[in-house]
Amino acid sequence: MKAILKNVLPVCAGTVLGSLSLAASAFDILPDRAPAPADNPTTPAKVSLGKQLYFDQRLSVNGTVSCNSCHSVMANGTDNRPVSVGVFDKRGGRSAPTVWNAAFLSVQFWDGRAASLEDQAKGPILAGVEMGMPSEAAVVERLKQIPGYVSQFQAVFGGEDALTYDNVARAIAAFERTLITPNAAVDRFLKGDKSALSASAQRGMKLVEKIGCTSCHTGPNYAGPAGLPVGQGFFQKFPVYPSKYDKQYDLKSDKGRYEVTHDDADKHLWRVPTWRNVALTAPYFHNGSVQTLDEAVRVMAKSQLDVSLSDAEVADIVAFLNGLSGEFPEITLPRLPETPNVTLLKK
Amino acid sequence: MKAILKNVLPVCAGTVLGSLSLAASAFDILPDRAPAPADNPTTPAKVSLGKQLYFDQRLSVNGTVSCNSCHSVMANGTDNRPVSVGVFDKRGGRSAPTVWNAAFLSVQFWDGRAASLEDQAKGPILAGVEMGMPSEAAVVERLKQIPGYVSQFQAVFGGEDALTYDNVARAIAAFERTLITPNAAVDRFLKGDKSALSASAQRGMKLVEKIGCTSCHTGPNYAGPAGLPVGQGFFQKFPVYPSKYDKQYDLKSDKGRYEVTHDDADKHLWRVPTWRNVALTAPYFHNGSVQTLDEAVRVMAKSQLDVSLSDAEVADIVAFLNGLSGEFPEITLPRLPETPNVTLLKK
Repeated sequence: MKAILKNVLPVCAGTVLGSLSLAASAFDILPDRAPAPADNPTTPAKVSLGKQLYFDQRLSVNGTVSCNSCHSVMANGTDNRPVSVGVFDKRGGRSAPTVWNAAFLSVQFWDGRAASLEDQAKGPILAGVEMGMPSEAAVVERLKQIPGYVSQFQAVFGGEDALTYDNVARAIAAFERTLITPNAAVDRFLKGDKSALSASAQRGMKLVEKIGCTSCHTGPNYAGPAGLPVGQGFFQKFPVYPSKYDKQYDLKSDKGRYEVTHDDADKHLWRVPTWRNVALTAPYFHNGSVQTLDEAVRVMAKSQLDVSLSDAEVADIVAFLNGLSGEFPEITLPRLPETPNVTLLKK
Repeated sequence: MKAILKNVLPVCAGTVLGSLSLAASAFDILPDRAPAPADNPTTPAKVSLGKQLYFDQRLSVNGTVSCNSCHSVMANGTDNRPVSVGVFDKRGGRSAPTVWNAAFLSVQFWDGRAASLEDQAKGPILAGVEMGMPSEAAVVERLKQIPGYVSQFQAVFGGEDALTYDNVARAIAAFERTLITPNAAVDRFLKGDKSALSASAQRGMKLVEKIGCTSCHTGPNYAGPAGLPVGQGFFQKFPVYPSKYDKQYDLKSDKGRYEVTHDDADKHLWRVPTWRNVALTAPYFHNGSVQTLDEAVRVMAKSQLDVSLSDAEVADIVAFLNGLSGEFPEITLPRLPETPNVTLLKK
């Protein structure tokens, strides 16, 4: 363990890990339900409203992009692209993280700039390279022209002014809290079904603990320690050890959390991404520069732990990571509320 | 009736109406099931496969556009935009027709250039301004890299070479044949529930027959006579009577079916669009130039029948047309088959 700690502890500098202790076991089972903040309890009507908003392209300026366009819940919660395509064919600089199990992340966005799903949901709708709406007021004004939304916001949130941008975000977040993929092979293995993982996957499971991957990829979402409160970020430096990969995959141009805080201590710090469904969410890293999971495993071992893995070790770890692909619940398509006799989209 | 025939008969020149006789009643009930061609029977497994393909953005060159992007089955089967936005922010020249009840159209596309849903499905995937795949072979090559598709095509179509472009189209068409919106208020009215339509809607119902709209907007889909075989198009000239609207809404730049046949007799001929869910599919006409149903009704009465409607008459017809909004069946989201450990989308 000393070798591991040598590798890991230095990169905890600059994190907000503080006094939290790492879980006793590196491996955890995914809960069936995600905790909700006190001011936004999860209710069926709110989830239904949030699902409609999540799939509604009218939340983008020209009616072409919904949350689901880049975070497809029909697939792995991403678009499998290096970076997503927003309105007017615009591109951002970072790869779309999966929405599945995002409720269990300590903070949202690659740089952790949103403390909650509610905060996160407010960003892309207004981002010029994503959904491109000009202002919160413009979003509210458009939704107020859709009778089926007006009535649902009133029923779900009540009060005189139920259709607000904050409530749009609350509804979307409530829907996202239902996007959980339980019963992955690793979960079944941890519950006692020793046949759930192949021998190779079980070797990989031991290996990721032995070389130190699970110092960060731990907890129920394999993205930080268990019990880390939502909103309290778990950040790590990437890359730690210089390697050929820095240039090959352009790993250092984007300075991560520093781009938000402009604090030198935050340079190249990133929120630790989940391992849940990681086999399904290629390409990899903040810039989507690595196309296969095998290569992502090689890059991480070298960049974070200064370990060069053999092909057999990579195969074992990849087999283990495939064991974190969960069961995707069946979801009905929402019916998006209409604007009879008229369109809101004029060009 | 003579005045109506005077208005209508001349525009039948150039159609393939031939010896078909118009239905005895102008109004028809929507069938619960759509007929399938002999070589593409509708089966549950094929519909499931077609639904996955319909929602899969990987059918577009850069993984950003699916069939559903512009023909949203969560909404009205369209995108409510004047013209749709394809890959790389490209635009076509015509408005996306609704996919709901398209199985009952005599031919597909505004200009009727596809005789069947199967033929139609092959077009947009390869169109540079829509999904932009370079060739049929490129589509097949991509899908063959997705194990879950390979196994499903084998199970559904069998044979040595089950994953073909023709079979992609067959599966999508099979799914589209399930997209039917029964039990609209007009259907319930015709079945005997006289309370299903308001007094205004009932006046509108009489008016569209009296002034001659139902000479073309008839049959179960209100898009041609009942019993017209699929593949045998029902075309009409639009506009017939010159008016201020020709310039105001640029109704004549696009020459319709002529653009396909280059036969002078086909200039400004169009497949008659359905009235089913017409209240939900604004904006209107082949170029999506008219934003409200009220105005579309005014334009059609003037351009096709040389009738200037009063505001009260327009309101009655709009009330009737709203009675053709049907019940949208509940559909489960497809699970799109994955490509574990790798992405097919590289830029």
